[in-house]
Amino acid sequence: MNSFIKQLYACQKSNQSLVCVGLDPNMDKINALGVDLSTWLKSIVDSVAHQVCAFKPQIAHFSAISAEEELLQIIAYIHENYPDVPVVLDSKRGDIGTTAEKYADEAFKKYKADAVTVNPYLGQDSLQPFLDYADKGVIALCKTSNVGSNEFQNLILNNGQTLYQQVAENAANKWNDNNNVLLVVGATYPEELAKIRSIVGEMPLLVPGIGAQGGDVSATLKAGLNDNLEKSGLIISSSRGIIYAGDTSQNYASEASQACQHLNRQINDFWSI
Amino acid sequence: MNSFIKQLYACQKSNQSLVCVGLDPNMDKINALGVDLSTWLKSIVDSVAHQVCAFKPQIAHFSAISAEEELLQIIAYIHENYPDVPVVLDSKRGDIGTTAEKYADEAFKKYKADAVTVNPYLGQDSLQPFLDYADKGVIALCKTSNVGSNEFQNLILNNGQTLYQQVAENAANKWNDNNNVLLVVGATYPEELAKIRSIVGEMPLLVPGIGAQGGDVSATLKAGLNDNLEKSGLIISSSRGIIYAGDTSQNYASEASQACQHLNRQINDFWSI
Repeated sequence: MNSFIKQLYACQKSNQSLVCVGLDPNMDKINALGVDLSTWLKSIVDSVAHQVCAFKPQIAHFSAISAEEELLQIIAYIHENYPDVPVVLDSKRGDIGTTAEKYADEAFKKYKADAVTVNPYLGQDSLQPFLDYADKGVIALCKTSNVGSNEFQNLILNNGQTLYQQVAENAANKWNDNNNVLLVVGATYPEELAKIRSIVGEMPLLVPGIGAQGGDVSATLKAGLNDNLEKSGLIISSSRGIIYAGDTSQNYASEASQACQHLNRQINDFWSI
Repeated sequence: MNSFIKQLYACQKSNQSLVCVGLDPNMDKINALGVDLSTWLKSIVDSVAHQVCAFKPQIAHFSAISAEEELLQIIAYIHENYPDVPVVLDSKRGDIGTTAEKYADEAFKKYKADAVTVNPYLGQDSLQPFLDYADKGVIALCKTSNVGSNEFQNLILNNGQTLYQQVAENAANKWNDNNNVLLVVGATYPEELAKIRSIVGEMPLLVPGIGAQGGDVSATLKAGLNDNLEKSGLIISSSRGIIYAGDTSQNYASEASQACQHLNRQINDFWSI
């Protein structure tokens, strides 16, 4: 099994959690708490680290405010203090080969992420520089959680399949020589999630869209869980619903922890090992 | 006409050039010249600024080496010294709405680019935060220059069209309320370029793939030029073929200028106004 997926499943088991907490700094909210970005990030990480299977910093929320250094530091902080919890860099990169190499360097060499999200529109050669990192996870967009995902992802091809099904098929059967491919599938589309599960075998799926975006926990787990619960096949990602659950400097960390526990309890009605 | 496109066409006319020079720092090559990154960037910009219609820094080449500050500075340098030459930030971003807002902030507020490249896989709502900048250019991937672009972009839909044609159609007919949409079409696919031109009217197309990637100038211009040459419809992008034409500290700037002039001459056999 690929190192990232192995670490992920080990962490799911030890923390009894399928929850991945997204780190999306919103400076309006953080400033209102009267704390600085680094303090906020560390407090959130500390408050939920034993209740998650992964952290997922979203890079645009850092780069837009020139907080690349804070992103580097929080990933290093997680690796140092919670070495069993993998870090997914959510950057949805995609470019032709020589440039894709630079994006892979950005994710894996610079930020030292354990996995990265990528966009498949340019095809396999654009993903190969990421896939060549055999120990890392490469998480390709398949069926995204937004309404607009229907515009192209649900188009029907002349073979009767939708585009997202074709992406899932190629991911499972063409790109996965290193067993390090995963897919992004929105919790807002449980029907599509079930179809993707039927195409990709036990491949782990990163599922955003629970919480603020309205995805349903029970429908998601029924559609996406593997029969073998040790290899759950799911990473349930939540960002705003957890990290902004509190709104004062006194309660933001504890409320994040409470919200994470609450989501874990909802999930663990269906999954525990 | 949208401000970016207006500036682009004015610059094409005054510099008699359809050439956009890509700024893709490769530190192995730059170190071998014995110059630092900022010096190299300014020298390249100075050497070709009067022979181009745009500059296109590719962000991965900066972020992978933590050179965000140098990227900020070179864009500011171009705006200050060559205010008539627009800057396209090549970042190929794409994410759901709230995150797309941050990517739009990154491109337009932080880096102060005049246009940005984006990935359409997530659909219109993921592009809207960019499109809402009515004065800026939003350049969506349509048919990319790499071999792997066939994997999805050339899939045939059940309406008989390819996916890239559907992207072109939606770009022209659904996304373009602010007349600020452009498309990326690789010079390596002149047949597809002609088909896209027939779908999108006079919409400007950013065409990479000339030079190092093997695209042919004459085939590209025949397939993509508008009848109205004042609105050429083309931005011919070249990076490595120009910026690394020289290989000593004495000749790298002059060779870049020569290579740019050479490409301009090839193009201007077919286009001049």
